[in-house]
Amino acid sequence: MVNNLSVAVVGATGAVGREMLRLLEDRSFSVSSLYPLASSRSAGAVASWSGQRLAVSDLATFDFEGIDLALFSAGGSVSIEHVPRAVASGAVVIDNTSAFRMDPDVPLVVPEVNISAAKNRPKGIIANPNCSTIQVVVPLEALRRAVGIKKLIVSTYQSASGAGSRALDELSRQAQASLEGREFKPQSFPRLLAFNLIPQIGSFEEDGFTSEEHKMINETRKIMNLPGLRVSATCVRVPVRIGHCAAVHVELNKSLSPEDAREILSAAPGVSVMDDISGNEYPDPLCAAGTDPCWVGRIRKDPALDNGLVFWVAADNLRKGAALNAVQIAEGIFTGN
Amino acid sequence: MVNNLSVAVVGATGAVGREMLRLLEDRSFSVSSLYPLASSRSAGAVASWSGQRLAVSDLATFDFEGIDLALFSAGGSVSIEHVPRAVASGAVVIDNTSAFRMDPDVPLVVPEVNISAAKNRPKGIIANPNCSTIQVVVPLEALRRAVGIKKLIVSTYQSASGAGSRALDELSRQAQASLEGREFKPQSFPRLLAFNLIPQIGSFEEDGFTSEEHKMINETRKIMNLPGLRVSATCVRVPVRIGHCAAVHVELNKSLSPEDAREILSAAPGVSVMDDISGNEYPDPLCAAGTDPCWVGRIRKDPALDNGLVFWVAADNLRKGAALNAVQIAEGIFTGN
Repeated sequence: MVNNLSVAVVGATGAVGREMLRLLEDRSFSVSSLYPLASSRSAGAVASWSGQRLAVSDLATFDFEGIDLALFSAGGSVSIEHVPRAVASGAVVIDNTSAFRMDPDVPLVVPEVNISAAKNRPKGIIANPNCSTIQVVVPLEALRRAVGIKKLIVSTYQSASGAGSRALDELSRQAQASLEGREFKPQSFPRLLAFNLIPQIGSFEEDGFTSEEHKMINETRKIMNLPGLRVSATCVRVPVRIGHCAAVHVELNKSLSPEDAREILSAAPGVSVMDDISGNEYPDPLCAAGTDPCWVGRIRKDPALDNGLVFWVAADNLRKGAALNAVQIAEGIFTGN
Repeated sequence: MVNNLSVAVVGATGAVGREMLRLLEDRSFSVSSLYPLASSRSAGAVASWSGQRLAVSDLATFDFEGIDLALFSAGGSVSIEHVPRAVASGAVVIDNTSAFRMDPDVPLVVPEVNISAAKNRPKGIIANPNCSTIQVVVPLEALRRAVGIKKLIVSTYQSASGAGSRALDELSRQAQASLEGREFKPQSFPRLLAFNLIPQIGSFEEDGFTSEEHKMINETRKIMNLPGLRVSATCVRVPVRIGHCAAVHVELNKSLSPEDAREILSAAPGVSVMDDISGNEYPDPLCAAGTDPCWVGRIRKDPALDNGLVFWVAADNLRKGAALNAVQIAEGIFTGN
């Protein structure tokens, strides 16, 4: 167990960064020095950590010398510019952006699935996957280990906080305007989200899928080391604050009863099964927000697919979908946990 | 063309009933007398129709003698009790509840798909399908006619108004309470819907699917006359006022390019294609509400299914999903349109 780590959190004033600071207060490795960093726009702000109030430093002028671990969550272009500096100074970088995720020399890690991949990091970088992908692969991995998987069809229901803390604030302002019958010009989303749905997350690519849907397809394959897995996804932004959900249809290699799947998932790391239809128990964003697990419910046979199974998964996109997964990767590296 | 019909609307004070009154003002058959009916609780209320204010009569004591057409939309138990009286008096009944939908002697009709089935109605009843099912089968029928369909996987995003006008009102009150940080005890939904998702519509059945999901599976098969069609569905209530959406994954009998699918769907009755990713154009509940078509966008190849296609469909659940479809059935019967 390694103690007394020096940790830099880049994007410390953002939705994920703040969650990282909270999680770093109480984990199985101890942090001796914590450096909250942000762009010069946010420099001067104050971040709370372990009962202390820490000044947020300007990333552009920060010297990474002596930093053991740098957690980046300030957007792809920031990572592309500053991650190499942090690595050159000897820091292990865990990057929460999509900048390096598909680089073959950068492991893409969900600890419950492939923590061993984090050991081999020729570029000194480990990528943290996309939020909605993480919560799908955690339960999926348990099913893969049990019987193998063949096809995956996912429809997501993704909360506003996945677009950042400004977007989260804007959802409330949009909703208030709508309740008062006032017009509102959306800024953080391509159109109104309050009392609406936006079937576009990220930008469109040539094949008609969005970049978010490509992440679900490509990152799932990379994390699970199943390059030929057939995956399809529709990613939809919904007017929810925190907590992403997904309806997951999976074709397994062998038939698995819902009862057996429930047992396998109950024993899977990172998964909590909440699936009692007699008591109307199933997860939702409100109950997932602020918690660590991937909550799985609505487990049933999929009548459309051979050896098909359907389930519903909810998770806190800022925690397991981002900050928690990054911190768990760090734990895997520094403590072997 | 038949004119001067006497029409009774049962459930005239509800969300669908009010929409029926609006639609009956301006259609291709003319209504000479309109009788808005409701339970004794709502009797005495006033309904607006064609610039007139009509007293809502008590269904329990209403005499259907002389009524040509009775549109029922007041819940399954009301239909079970009163539809036989209306039929016995000689009225054609179009029933919007699930009471008779799976009865083999009751046609289940979406005019764009199977209007001819409405001619054979041994019980004098035609059933109007479930809201989310209608908007899926309308575009699906066009694909079926072109190349045939084999498998269907649907995830829905269903608005509050699908649960009735009280539920619609409650969503706003829930949202206001949430914005003010006040507690709210949900009444029209099994749990809070504002800023949340509820992956349960209807009641749970033994196989783990909800009654709403069974409607999607069984009604699709019956309407399309494809008893062996493999269908799977997850039905989710979302905090939207009016307008249901669905992500639809379909395995076709033959490959169809997105371009060809777009062309076929553009020519299909009841469908409007809104699918220009270069301009971020795709349908959503806000743009579908108050309109007649099933809006289809996000058309693309489904990489997980053989000959697979994915699309996104949005429609006004009170109009095409309920009142409009019922009125279109009536037009088919009374005018041959």
